[in-house]
Amino acid sequence: MAHPDRLLLGPGPSNPYPEVVEAFQRPVLGHLDPDFLAVLDEIADRLRAVFRTANPLTLPVSGTGSAGMEACFVNLVEPGDTVVVGVNGVFGERMCEVARRCGATVVRVEAPWGRAIDPQRLLDARAAAPHARLVAVVHAETSTGVENEIAPLAELQGTDTLLLVDTVTSLGGIPVEVDAWGVDAAYSATQKCLGVPPGLAPVTFSPRAAERVRSRGAAVQSWYLDLSLIADYVGAARRYHHTAPISMLYALHAGLGVLLDEGLEASWARHRDAGARLQEALPGYGFRAFATERRLPQLTSVWLPDGVDDAKLRDELRTRFDIEVGGGLGELAGKGWRIGLMGHGARERSVTTLLGALDALLGR
Amino acid sequence: MAHPDRLLLGPGPSNPYPEVVEAFQRPVLGHLDPDFLAVLDEIADRLRAVFRTANPLTLPVSGTGSAGMEACFVNLVEPGDTVVVGVNGVFGERMCEVARRCGATVVRVEAPWGRAIDPQRLLDARAAAPHARLVAVVHAETSTGVENEIAPLAELQGTDTLLLVDTVTSLGGIPVEVDAWGVDAAYSATQKCLGVPPGLAPVTFSPRAAERVRSRGAAVQSWYLDLSLIADYVGAARRYHHTAPISMLYALHAGLGVLLDEGLEASWARHRDAGARLQEALPGYGFRAFATERRLPQLTSVWLPDGVDDAKLRDELRTRFDIEVGGGLGELAGKGWRIGLMGHGARERSVTTLLGALDALLGR
Repeated sequence: MAHPDRLLLGPGPSNPYPEVVEAFQRPVLGHLDPDFLAVLDEIADRLRAVFRTANPLTLPVSGTGSAGMEACFVNLVEPGDTVVVGVNGVFGERMCEVARRCGATVVRVEAPWGRAIDPQRLLDARAAAPHARLVAVVHAETSTGVENEIAPLAELQGTDTLLLVDTVTSLGGIPVEVDAWGVDAAYSATQKCLGVPPGLAPVTFSPRAAERVRSRGAAVQSWYLDLSLIADYVGAARRYHHTAPISMLYALHAGLGVLLDEGLEASWARHRDAGARLQEALPGYGFRAFATERRLPQLTSVWLPDGVDDAKLRDELRTRFDIEVGGGLGELAGKGWRIGLMGHGARERSVTTLLGALDALLGR
Repeated sequence: MAHPDRLLLGPGPSNPYPEVVEAFQRPVLGHLDPDFLAVLDEIADRLRAVFRTANPLTLPVSGTGSAGMEACFVNLVEPGDTVVVGVNGVFGERMCEVARRCGATVVRVEAPWGRAIDPQRLLDARAAAPHARLVAVVHAETSTGVENEIAPLAELQGTDTLLLVDTVTSLGGIPVEVDAWGVDAAYSATQKCLGVPPGLAPVTFSPRAAERVRSRGAAVQSWYLDLSLIADYVGAARRYHHTAPISMLYALHAGLGVLLDEGLEASWARHRDAGARLQEALPGYGFRAFATERRLPQLTSVWLPDGVDDAKLRDELRTRFDIEVGGGLGELAGKGWRIGLMGHGARERSVTTLLGALDALLGR
């Protein structure tokens, strides 16, 4: 079976760093082997550095980003709780669905796709439901390429409501400041700006979020994602919970190493510069911006030029140039693209490679 | 950081096949790329061959074996359902805990650790609770090294109760006959007799189990593990659910290829022969069998020789010989071992290597 070598410029997965691919070759160790547990400890340390947090409860959940989302909700929400959710794309919608399956009453704070959510509206919604257990919002909406501002939500630290943030597409690509922004729980994924294949979901819980988990009335509905049990394995007790996905953890360990060796600020700058280069160039090809404010550099959503056939052009990009870009979702489906410049792919060469192919295909 | 190269003779993970390690080097593709979806389809075909089933709903869940267990329970059980569970070790206990978190009433059918569960007792327990939604049992108890007989439970096909079987440690190592035994749902894990690192959980659902999922009253409490949604991605609709763990799936694809190239019967024979060789030799060193019936060839539980310090001997094995064996659980903790001969490790060389080290350490 063929294994083509694609340049991955969709909404994720991105191409992994070479050091990450190499890490998959490390010999497998047992999940209770002291030499493996040292790697696991170092992963937690590196995740704290990347999340900009001192939270002891910081670990990789053994599933993809959506498992991270679910881990946060099932641990923090009990049946009957009220949850305020910001919704301006697919992943805000997904949060509502996951919260409902935890028995929560969901208060939606909506903004149109392609626009940001005014954080004051989230604060107002919470003030109208002061017993709300959580305010949850997506930092970087992968479906639209819009950043929702998080910093003003630090105000929730003065209340009994926790702040949960989806950093799947933001972590490593743009500033994420868990402690400075008063984020109580955050989850991410490996396959975006961390430059690691999909399969793990970094999560971090503040001390007050961890306390909320400990003082629950009802058991967490998911045994697999029960953070109290997982913390007993990742933490000092080293009590077996489930078998850790060893090889994926090596890959994450390596990817976080690459990122921290480069430096977070340098990585943010690299994503910013690559995204700016792309977003400046696309209008020259007839693409028009879909997101109209707070555009993410690492995920660019655009309407296709007039008269261009979405499926045909993406097929040609893929088969003739081995380049993947993402199709649109919602209103953008069939009419626009989502172009990712994430992790290892967030560099000028990715932009010039894509533009070179578009030159050839669009006959400029 | 050091990356020692261990011979993994514990209860899993086992050492992966070389072809599996190599597969991690395949370039990452997008989860909607036709070339990746062809790999995913082939994985499903290979899983059907390994499970010995024609079930269309056969796929790898994006988590470790315990996620597979949870996927089966959350999809098949609704709050208030009665579930009959066989318990003769850690994993039967875990099934009870997961079922309870789904709101089930659990009827336990117990046997002592190290003994098998008489399948007639499971059938009797179901007859006493004819409305039971599920009978659930572990095929190969990893905590004790005992096989529970499944074939007689095919009788449940004449009832409205489904049969759920944990094949985590059995699949690939001893006969598993999903269709012939009337198994309605089974889950497994990659890191045992399939010779792949941990991270995925193959599952298969019979048509009547799939129908049970479709006709549920309540939504599946886990969005991440909702098989109706996952099936829409793995199946013809190709509807995005979560980002598939691409590199782990390549590894599974390769591992299943190795297994099917060898042939299931040949793999079972290899596990049987290696296990027999070990179990014949150990009494000569003063080890005594813990499991007293239906011993698994791929997982041998033994009491340590008199006067031997568990932690010290395992440390020496690990540091001087780079060999891992597993500690005991329950009654066996600190007093016995669990020795795995699984997947790539199920061969005579593993046995002679371990015995050679024991010769040196025990001064025979």
